[in-house]
Amino acid sequence: MTQSRTATTFAPPVMEARRWLEGVTFPADHPLINVSQAAPVDPPPQPLRQAMADFALTEDSAHLYGPVLGNDDLRTGLAREISDHYAASVRANQVAITSGCNQAFACTISALTTEGDEVILPTPWYFNHKMWLDMAGVTAVPLTTGPDLLPDPVKAEALITPRTRAISLVTPNNPGGVEYPADLVKAFFDLARKHGIRLLLDETYRDFDSREGAPHPLFSQPGWDDTLVHLYSFSKAYRLTGHRVGALATSPALLSEIEKFLDTVAICPGQIGQHAALWGMENLGEWLAGERREILDRRAAIADGMPMLEAKGWKLLGLGAYFAYLEHPFDLPSDELARKLVPEAGILLLPGTMFMPAGDAAGTRQVRVAFANLDRNGIGQLFERLGGLTL
Amino acid sequence: MTQSRTATTFAPPVMEARRWLEGVTFPADHPLINVSQAAPVDPPPQPLRQAMADFALTEDSAHLYGPVLGNDDLRTGLAREISDHYAASVRANQVAITSGCNQAFACTISALTTEGDEVILPTPWYFNHKMWLDMAGVTAVPLTTGPDLLPDPVKAEALITPRTRAISLVTPNNPGGVEYPADLVKAFFDLARKHGIRLLLDETYRDFDSREGAPHPLFSQPGWDDTLVHLYSFSKAYRLTGHRVGALATSPALLSEIEKFLDTVAICPGQIGQHAALWGMENLGEWLAGERREILDRRAAIADGMPMLEAKGWKLLGLGAYFAYLEHPFDLPSDELARKLVPEAGILLLPGTMFMPAGDAAGTRQVRVAFANLDRNGIGQLFERLGGLTL
Repeated sequence: MTQSRTATTFAPPVMEARRWLEGVTFPADHPLINVSQAAPVDPPPQPLRQAMADFALTEDSAHLYGPVLGNDDLRTGLAREISDHYAASVRANQVAITSGCNQAFACTISALTTEGDEVILPTPWYFNHKMWLDMAGVTAVPLTTGPDLLPDPVKAEALITPRTRAISLVTPNNPGGVEYPADLVKAFFDLARKHGIRLLLDETYRDFDSREGAPHPLFSQPGWDDTLVHLYSFSKAYRLTGHRVGALATSPALLSEIEKFLDTVAICPGQIGQHAALWGMENLGEWLAGERREILDRRAAIADGMPMLEAKGWKLLGLGAYFAYLEHPFDLPSDELARKLVPEAGILLLPGTMFMPAGDAAGTRQVRVAFANLDRNGIGQLFERLGGLTL
Repeated sequence: MTQSRTATTFAPPVMEARRWLEGVTFPADHPLINVSQAAPVDPPPQPLRQAMADFALTEDSAHLYGPVLGNDDLRTGLAREISDHYAASVRANQVAITSGCNQAFACTISALTTEGDEVILPTPWYFNHKMWLDMAGVTAVPLTTGPDLLPDPVKAEALITPRTRAISLVTPNNPGGVEYPADLVKAFFDLARKHGIRLLLDETYRDFDSREGAPHPLFSQPGWDDTLVHLYSFSKAYRLTGHRVGALATSPALLSEIEKFLDTVAICPGQIGQHAALWGMENLGEWLAGERREILDRRAAIADGMPMLEAKGWKLLGLGAYFAYLEHPFDLPSDELARKLVPEAGILLLPGTMFMPAGDAAGTRQVRVAFANLDRNGIGQLFERLGGLTL
């Protein structure tokens, strides 16, 4: 008997990491430092919560099906927002709303590929992308990166075959943290266009990029939507993880294909989340700017603390978005290290092995720290615990 | 170049039907009667809306990620509810929450099948099931039904091959309306078990079944969860379509597989919808009983009106849940008829062709009327318009 689709892939890493906590207790003066999940742990600001509550109470449409590709007002609002952010002209019919950004990836892959096709992913990769490709019967072709974690378009071109349907990038990167330079993103766009394949660009962490202005020029390329599929999430910007609102931008023709998948898997995105995303874009611009400054300050705290860790043999490979991606100095694989860190240091982080093809040695030396939920004081404590480790 | 997964299937029928309305105006004294979508058009009762608003305002967890398979309290609550309804003992770890019932079907299929496998579906079928099987690379094997719309287990057995992974039934049926007799459901369970395949039982409309008590005995079969996958929706019972909350019940082992799909496509169900579903189960039992009585009364109104339509050549094939499934008397295919009904009679309904394999002649004679949103007066008007048609 053949394997089912789900049997071809691994268990969800975040759920697995959560299970490492079972049965472990943490003393009150030495609580768990959880840097495993890249998600805000604080709720959205009170006015946004109030807007959701009011919407539930007073708008009947809050409780009814909406269009498969998302509500018109949100599509229009996001098109305007993308146009502003990237200094471009994106139309509402080039934008769709999904139930989270993972779903935006899944529906795009299903509209572009079939059994036996290939998609190129730089490593370390985002594990949910790898999982979906496995389940879709699509080969995830790893594009190894160097010490700077940046993918090389020349190496990528050498991996393109007649079955390649897309290259998928994440910038700012998860898990690596690095912000891909605009020129590099443009080079990948040109490469994809040259070969008649798509460029997926997951910009979930866009709002925390350290650079001012448009992080790349793709939306101003003529006919951008025949090549680019931009993926986005409202979850991080407005703290809406529990409401599942993501988005994508590409050609209306591809969106018509994507509509079939979304109709069958979601019917429509949740209404309260859609309302919250629109309300956030319209009212929380300044608040979000403050959030970004705070994340950038935490990122600076990581950089400030690194010399102390480097003295213990650690190395910083990438830093940005919500993430520090580190090389550890210990003589054991990162998945064993990560499990040990729970009881021995009161730290939950994800090992590099979770972001790498099975058997890739680099991952065994690496760990991802999702630092966004730690303030300067918390980052200090994390570094103290990591620096004091004797294994 | 091979076709993508989405290219193997058709456009969402409900969205297509909506497009038939474009540019058509309806006079105030002759408004559109929309019996196309099987969804409540009224919002949930006010206390439930208030519960959602309070939850958004006061519970931080309303805005944060939850477990992939749903919140523990809702899984526990639903397990108890299923146990009550079916006079059985279902455990919380045999239950999972999904972002709607379509997603429950999709994740189950992905955990059971791979490219080239087969799933048996009685016809007329629910089009979203057919669409997902297409996109999954799974052959939907049609099991034709007779004039009573009931599937025959003997005919089904003849369709089983080494690639068959499941039989999927919907009861009360969409689009047919018929409530499958308990013995028939049990016979299909036995058939599935005998062949080592699964029985998917979509009971989205369970709460509007005209029969009192458990509609089938499957949950009390020893080891039921090695064969049965029960699918359910909170959307119809508590009017939560805009919040996307469905569920399934099966073995914990299969749920572990399903978790991979859900992690990658949804991460978790929306929190406010989950809260609303639990609140509904705990507080709206009497209200739901009243809803059921109202739907059953509307169903009786359909039955009462049929003699008048029969005199014009119409035939009632099935009646129950939200649906009347009718044979029309006209000399044109149902898809053309349905399109004509919009401007000529101010009626939007779905043609049988949308529920049938391409080329199956039976569908051209049939139409589905989703009557649940029409009161007795509205049903009277619908029948008047249908009875007065001259085409």
